[in-house]
Amino acid sequence: MVMSLQNVLDARKRIDSYIHTTQVMQSSQLNDLADAELFFKCEHLQKVGAFKARGAVNAVFALDDDQASTGVATHSSGNHGAAVARAAKLRGIPAWIVVPENALASKKAAIKNYGAEIIECASTLEARESSLADLVSDKQCQVVPPYDDNYVIAGQGTAGLELLEQVDKLDCMVTPVGGGGLLAGCLLAVDGKIPVYGAEPAGADDAYRSFTTGVRIESHNPNTIADGLRTVLGVKNFEIIKAHAEDILLVTEEEIVFAMTLIWTRLKQVVEPSSAVTLAAVLKNPEVFRGRRVGLILTGGNVDVGNLPF
Amino acid sequence: MVMSLQNVLDARKRIDSYIHTTQVMQSSQLNDLADAELFFKCEHLQKVGAFKARGAVNAVFALDDDQASTGVATHSSGNHGAAVARAAKLRGIPAWIVVPENALASKKAAIKNYGAEIIECASTLEARESSLADLVSDKQCQVVPPYDDNYVIAGQGTAGLELLEQVDKLDCMVTPVGGGGLLAGCLLAVDGKIPVYGAEPAGADDAYRSFTTGVRIESHNPNTIADGLRTVLGVKNFEIIKAHAEDILLVTEEEIVFAMTLIWTRLKQVVEPSSAVTLAAVLKNPEVFRGRRVGLILTGGNVDVGNLPF
Repeated sequence: MVMSLQNVLDARKRIDSYIHTTQVMQSSQLNDLADAELFFKCEHLQKVGAFKARGAVNAVFALDDDQASTGVATHSSGNHGAAVARAAKLRGIPAWIVVPENALASKKAAIKNYGAEIIECASTLEARESSLADLVSDKQCQVVPPYDDNYVIAGQGTAGLELLEQVDKLDCMVTPVGGGGLLAGCLLAVDGKIPVYGAEPAGADDAYRSFTTGVRIESHNPNTIADGLRTVLGVKNFEIIKAHAEDILLVTEEEIVFAMTLIWTRLKQVVEPSSAVTLAAVLKNPEVFRGRRVGLILTGGNVDVGNLPF
Repeated sequence: MVMSLQNVLDARKRIDSYIHTTQVMQSSQLNDLADAELFFKCEHLQKVGAFKARGAVNAVFALDDDQASTGVATHSSGNHGAAVARAAKLRGIPAWIVVPENALASKKAAIKNYGAEIIECASTLEARESSLADLVSDKQCQVVPPYDDNYVIAGQGTAGLELLEQVDKLDCMVTPVGGGGLLAGCLLAVDGKIPVYGAEPAGADDAYRSFTTGVRIESHNPNTIADGLRTVLGVKNFEIIKAHAEDILLVTEEEIVFAMTLIWTRLKQVVEPSSAVTLAAVLKNPEVFRGRRVGLILTGGNVDVGNLPF
């Protein structure tokens, strides 16, 4: 299946009544700092506090009734888990979420809140995948992958579609890249009309290395505060990103925390570190963004306020 | 001069082009928790990050050219200072701000950012007032009082006026009360159409004691995390509050921090402790607010993110 803008348009129709059209915010202070016009798409104000609500609803509602009847499962460090739990609840089917033991307490609480069952495992990708495989074999349920899935990709892309429609004459877009669901979806959504950049922590630079070498990195040892971006770039995601992304921009941990502080103190928005990599990338690359109208996606706002990096 | 709704309407005309019409936010989780419909007026997204932008612009632009020519001065622990500095800059006149030495660094930085001169003093009301008196005698400038002033009161009231227009069938309104500018202004704005409650830290309960005894408390020793509410209720403010407020509701420090955490994690909004007393009061008094459509004013978002209470 070759993915295109049409998949994103189909996704929007499917999920429209279950998600928010999130607002776009601006700050004259941040514009001055970046010497550009920045438009922040507030997906931290989305249902479950993250853009992941989009892909999960799209994937769960794309199942036929037979497939859906046995329920759904996934593995997730947090936001995708809550999103699948919520989507299952909306559809009235059971959900099981495999969660690494080091996941944030706030994210585990959100999953439980939506009535899903949590299965804890070690924090490696291998442990997550094997726990999920055991679960699926036991329950005979459907897997909703966190990012490496056409319906998930198309669903996340609806955030980019909205942003493109909400801001007149946008010059480019920047999204964080972890597994690559959002970046790939946004690339489909803009359909070549404007360039889309990925922003990634240098401590989890698999997408950068995959993109620059043309060969997908299959595993890595991420070391970043941006807990939503520790996953490895997906196969389907990489195909789309390799073909269409303008560039992948790396940022340091210090740059992430600085950008996060700016978003908290200037925009007054509570966002998680993963949301700050885009602003960090824009501030780091003035030669790319100066004078342009830049769309940035604030991906999520689920933080443990008792454990902040500043 | 007897103050009325007309003063607030006049203020709106005067300040309209210099301030934001701030949005109103809702959270289904917070509605469930309160068993009421809560409408949060986002004055932390106002210019200078606080409703104080309103009163300051109204007072500074109400001066005639002769009065304005020598500049303006005030004393403030922060938001009003930044607001006066900004209003003076907009009008193109100098400003001097007396700031207690224990004021937050972020608030002092904001004042300097708008080009005003900061004069530091001890943190007592007496020290602030005597520093300001010296300054005025030296510079022959106009004082813009932080709250005990008809133009300031009318300006702050425009926040309540907007909220009343933005939310259909609002049943009541809750504002924090410190010096009483916002509460008094909102009482004028609603003009008896709905009840307005003040919410106050128990550790700075001068408005509560003044309201319940009918005699204004003239000084106190506040002990509260809500740094914006440590001031003593003003004379003009008290007259309006005594005549029109429905009640003053007290909350503890623990209740303030809990409500602040809810606003940060559910609404995803960065607000200062003073902003959280209203939600704390609503959660504490279900017999008053259950089932009602309640407007709450989030008054400001200027916090030192490196020094948070959780």
